[in-house]
Amino acid sequence: MIVALAGGVGAARFLEGFVRVVPQEKVTIIGNVGDDIEIYGLHVSPDLDIVAYTLAGLVDPNKGWGFRGDTFHCQEILCKYGYETWFHIGDRDMATHLYRTQQLRRGSRLSKVTHDLVRSLGLRVKLLPATDDQLTTYVTSRGRRMHFQEYMVKRGTRPRIDRVIFEGAKSTEPADGVLESITRAKGVLVCPSNPIVSIGAVLAVPKIRAALQRAKTKVVAVSPIIGGKTVKGPADKLMKSLGVEPSAFGVAECYRDFLDTIIIDRVDRKLAPKIEALGIKATVTQALMKTMADKVRLARLALSEIES
Amino acid sequence: MIVALAGGVGAARFLEGFVRVVPQEKVTIIGNVGDDIEIYGLHVSPDLDIVAYTLAGLVDPNKGWGFRGDTFHCQEILCKYGYETWFHIGDRDMATHLYRTQQLRRGSRLSKVTHDLVRSLGLRVKLLPATDDQLTTYVTSRGRRMHFQEYMVKRGTRPRIDRVIFEGAKSTEPADGVLESITRAKGVLVCPSNPIVSIGAVLAVPKIRAALQRAKTKVVAVSPIIGGKTVKGPADKLMKSLGVEPSAFGVAECYRDFLDTIIIDRVDRKLAPKIEALGIKATVTQALMKTMADKVRLARLALSEIES
Repeated sequence: MIVALAGGVGAARFLEGFVRVVPQEKVTIIGNVGDDIEIYGLHVSPDLDIVAYTLAGLVDPNKGWGFRGDTFHCQEILCKYGYETWFHIGDRDMATHLYRTQQLRRGSRLSKVTHDLVRSLGLRVKLLPATDDQLTTYVTSRGRRMHFQEYMVKRGTRPRIDRVIFEGAKSTEPADGVLESITRAKGVLVCPSNPIVSIGAVLAVPKIRAALQRAKTKVVAVSPIIGGKTVKGPADKLMKSLGVEPSAFGVAECYRDFLDTIIIDRVDRKLAPKIEALGIKATVTQALMKTMADKVRLARLALSEIES
Repeated sequence: MIVALAGGVGAARFLEGFVRVVPQEKVTIIGNVGDDIEIYGLHVSPDLDIVAYTLAGLVDPNKGWGFRGDTFHCQEILCKYGYETWFHIGDRDMATHLYRTQQLRRGSRLSKVTHDLVRSLGLRVKLLPATDDQLTTYVTSRGRRMHFQEYMVKRGTRPRIDRVIFEGAKSTEPADGVLESITRAKGVLVCPSNPIVSIGAVLAVPKIRAALQRAKTKVVAVSPIIGGKTVKGPADKLMKSLGVEPSAFGVAECYRDFLDTIIIDRVDRKLAPKIEALGIKATVTQALMKTMADKVRLARLALSEIES
């Protein structure tokens, strides 16, 4: 059994390759819920959905989120009713949020709802939210606090961020199965996601970080930063403005208390000695995923690092 | 100011003509909420929406409900998640229910939400739910109780109904503005809707029926039964199985405590003496509405009866 810590699009694309190398039944994904947001009274879990839709082959390949070919008729009318529509939700996607919201209102935990959604989409991976408790990622820009989605989607990552807050994190417990999966795993993967906000919000659940620090198996990360830039999302910007080096080295530093190996791109090979000085092995490869073949090759490498 | 008591499709089609004869600002519609139902955790008000969509020129003209050209992508996915989809909700229509539900959860009354929806759709009529309180229409068939929508939509009006129950009706108060509008009206119209369940649920609010009985202005109904049959819906069946004559006479009987005039179709002219024996004037015309011209002519006749 392999455990993967995952954010959104980067993680989902990496995992697409990974489940071609390792049977889905043997993969447990611990997903970020810090970005969860209530929209139109519905509970939206963007990162869990991105991972599920991607692995089910249903995701919009250009956007990286939502259903392929989805329509936005509901939001067109919501706009007419005066609602904001900066957070795009397609009509098919709306079904997921309706289902999740109603099940949560009936008393189901997010982990149970996620399990049912994932099975309905035909997947056999285990997808666990890091926690069933309330954990919300906020950022502040010049002292003004905003939900991470407001920064990310509404403001297009333009504000300069001075602080990231994982509200409620300290009192969260890992969702059922999270700790057990880490303890029993043959290895742990940290997907190429934003180390500050996406993986950061998973690690903000105190017992998850502690379990990784104690883990006896290999913990292997794939750097989401290549040549000082992220492929998608604001990780590089956020790292920089928070005083973390926006590089594979910076990523390794974020995870230094539990990481064994980090897979970095060839363009970053000069960072290897600096990373290894942290006591973390740096494995150099072509880390940019353009094709499914790239994803599969990267997955094989990650697996061999875990097994080494 | 004219007040119209309204159910769903029949009322909406009649009112389409009426607002061509009387300015929208002078029309207050008191709508049925007995058919309201919670679907996917959303508050659906079918009759209010049918009236609003129709008057806004947005309704699906074939179905008589929902938005013209709407898609059903959300429900396709909800079906995948194991939800029932017998109550059809299009993607655009879903927006109305999302808006209504969120506003109600925030503490708005249904009358306020309906007002805002109607204004967003560009209408100037006043559309008032009969009550802001809980009033739900149930029917029983061989002792088995079901929500009216289950009988109407899920079971396609096939069960033989032995009883209609307006649950909660006795303790309902009319929504703000309902009594005032009846008291101040120049006349009251009872639209060609199901007298048992649609208008019946409006009249089940005790103070509404009492206000009509006391009304000093004319109360004019348009019979929804023509030649013993309804144009749409189960009114004829329901009347029959509840021991009410399924005819324009039976309709007049349902309203005998407050009705001044009933407009009936030519095919029912032989019923006129029997109706007039109830102390209700029967006005004979072509009551079947096929074209907008039919609707306008019928509206003019109703208006002249009010003014007579």
